[in-house]
Amino acid sequence: MIPAHGGRLVDRLVRSEERERVTKQLGSLPKFQLNEREASDLELIATGGFSPLEGFLNESDYVSVRDRMRLSNDLPWSLPVTLAVKPGDKAKYQPGQDLALVDVDGKVLGSMHVEDVYQVDHKTEAEQVLRTNDAAHPGVEYLQSITNTYLGGRISMVERRAHTQFMDFRLDPKETRVLFKHKGWKRVVAFQTRNPIHRAHEYIQKCALEMVDGLLVHPLMGKTKGDDIPEDIRFECYNALLGQYFPKERVAMSIFPAAMRYAGPREAIFHALVRKNFGCTHFIVGRDHAGVGNYYGTYDAQLIFDEFEPGEIGITPMLFEHAFFDLKSGAMGTDKTCPPAEEKGQRVFLSGTKVREMLSNGESPPAEFTRPEIAQILMKSMTPKS
Amino acid sequence: MIPAHGGRLVDRLVRSEERERVTKQLGSLPKFQLNEREASDLELIATGGFSPLEGFLNESDYVSVRDRMRLSNDLPWSLPVTLAVKPGDKAKYQPGQDLALVDVDGKVLGSMHVEDVYQVDHKTEAEQVLRTNDAAHPGVEYLQSITNTYLGGRISMVERRAHTQFMDFRLDPKETRVLFKHKGWKRVVAFQTRNPIHRAHEYIQKCALEMVDGLLVHPLMGKTKGDDIPEDIRFECYNALLGQYFPKERVAMSIFPAAMRYAGPREAIFHALVRKNFGCTHFIVGRDHAGVGNYYGTYDAQLIFDEFEPGEIGITPMLFEHAFFDLKSGAMGTDKTCPPAEEKGQRVFLSGTKVREMLSNGESPPAEFTRPEIAQILMKSMTPKS
Repeated sequence: MIPAHGGRLVDRLVRSEERERVTKQLGSLPKFQLNEREASDLELIATGGFSPLEGFLNESDYVSVRDRMRLSNDLPWSLPVTLAVKPGDKAKYQPGQDLALVDVDGKVLGSMHVEDVYQVDHKTEAEQVLRTNDAAHPGVEYLQSITNTYLGGRISMVERRAHTQFMDFRLDPKETRVLFKHKGWKRVVAFQTRNPIHRAHEYIQKCALEMVDGLLVHPLMGKTKGDDIPEDIRFECYNALLGQYFPKERVAMSIFPAAMRYAGPREAIFHALVRKNFGCTHFIVGRDHAGVGNYYGTYDAQLIFDEFEPGEIGITPMLFEHAFFDLKSGAMGTDKTCPPAEEKGQRVFLSGTKVREMLSNGESPPAEFTRPEIAQILMKSMTPKS
Repeated sequence: MIPAHGGRLVDRLVRSEERERVTKQLGSLPKFQLNEREASDLELIATGGFSPLEGFLNESDYVSVRDRMRLSNDLPWSLPVTLAVKPGDKAKYQPGQDLALVDVDGKVLGSMHVEDVYQVDHKTEAEQVLRTNDAAHPGVEYLQSITNTYLGGRISMVERRAHTQFMDFRLDPKETRVLFKHKGWKRVVAFQTRNPIHRAHEYIQKCALEMVDGLLVHPLMGKTKGDDIPEDIRFECYNALLGQYFPKERVAMSIFPAAMRYAGPREAIFHALVRKNFGCTHFIVGRDHAGVGNYYGTYDAQLIFDEFEPGEIGITPMLFEHAFFDLKSGAMGTDKTCPPAEEKGQRVFLSGTKVREMLSNGESPPAEFTRPEIAQILMKSMTPKS
């Protein structure tokens, strides 16, 4: 089995037999309320998804990650995982302190030992990590919503944040590793998505699957933009697609409970490293991975892998070009594998805007673009409820 | 560019300015007539296709290759490349001697410095290399047609054997390397075939191509079995397929001038190593690679790669399962990527026998099995000429 990033799968979950005692102790500590992204980070740190991180970044790791995509020990890490104090609370914290981390309803999720309290410059962070300072970028918008005082320190988790949906599909890194072993998969490719899967992505997944033993469809279902398709609809789409068009023995689905950062290239590296922690050996990177708007070049999220030695990343990126249905060859493909288009309309491809327009008019996109079963679900979800 | 096997691309071609002088000198040497396989081996040794070999194997390398798939210096090498003396000529050769190597018409092709004259046991060779001693196996049949006295020694080549066809498509390893560099391909996958390309193989090629920069279609056009499809027909098929269904910028075709050994698994390793010498980084291995009859298990030629460390082989094998058109998903795929067949006939696949039968009846196989342009060429070739 592929080792976790840094060599050891982090486990910062308080054991069930100690949970009651520890939770009681935490009751007496100052409370720190986590926002949705921070709560999701807590869960992924504690369960090893963010190995080797054992907590929120301290200043030296933060600066190193921000400026050179590496932790201070040189291990590649591309996104700052940080905890910002609430406005007006800046003076409340000092190194050495223990905090109880609570969710928006005040429920205790875990604890943190503050090692570091430091000031950051959001403009520098945005420019380095997001490659933009435009307030219209959701990552920049997030930075503008938080303070510039960060706390660094190790965490423990006593309680999961409140998940109510897809409970059978929430596998921790430890569990996906058991699953792959049980299935006898040595080489597993992970597919990250925050959208319904149209045929272009089905094609890429199958291409990748031909090279390995199994496919993990690992949809991100944490905090996303308001105009992304709702989680339950996406879940229904994934189930329909896998049930109808894939062999059960070769595909698994699990929820990736992370928040989207829309950091494009940097987030592609992050998504790959994290999937290594989940036990995957390969990771699909298509065009515009984790992108938003026009902030990143179409293939920037592929090119960034060249900035590391393959052994440093450890998980193998599988890079794909823009896919479409080619009417001449009667098959899906890309510019790499299809004959040149001799006439307009030889290739079936629709823009996201066009697809949304068709679906909301109750019109099904062509079967060459979207499987009819998926189109049905999407159309139904877009019909105004009476 | 990927280094040749052993680190250095062998070049045993006499330079053109010296050719006349050397050929004259060779005129005075004892003549040794090469059969078709031996002449092909000479060409591939001299042009570096068989790097690191610089000649026909001496006894210690022969035994080492036969018994442990390695040269005596431990470098992987899976097939003996040997030169057998003609019946009755056994006593004619001794170490230290120089020979002129001539073709069946007596034309001088090159020279050999005899380092070793040794006796072999064909039964052991067949059992180790071909995994059978059955006289019906074409490799066993070949061994039975030659003597068991082999000559080992370094060769030089002054003259190509007489090629009359496909002259623009006969690239030496040096030349394919220039081509790949010129095309800007860093990762190149080679496809070996001795058959027309039906859609199953087109699918595998395209799947592989999605992962790399370019595809080298490298059909073996040396000595094959009598019932394999003739070279000119195959060549016409390849041209039609590449012209109609691939983008020119991503595919190259060149003739692989080797003789088929039908050694299945061992030949898969051999085919991969040799393609590394041609500058390829990846090599496609489908089911029954280089097999014949029922001598090898369907995926033996894939499993044999596990007997080496990946770094030892150097070229990456891309392993594919049996491919077919799946009517449910409307696409090509394999058991790995297609939904389970719910009904007989959901998957379009025909046996070789069935295809030959249809073609010779002037009946085109379905377009899901063979591209119509290819079917046309094959049908035409099977119509008895009046």
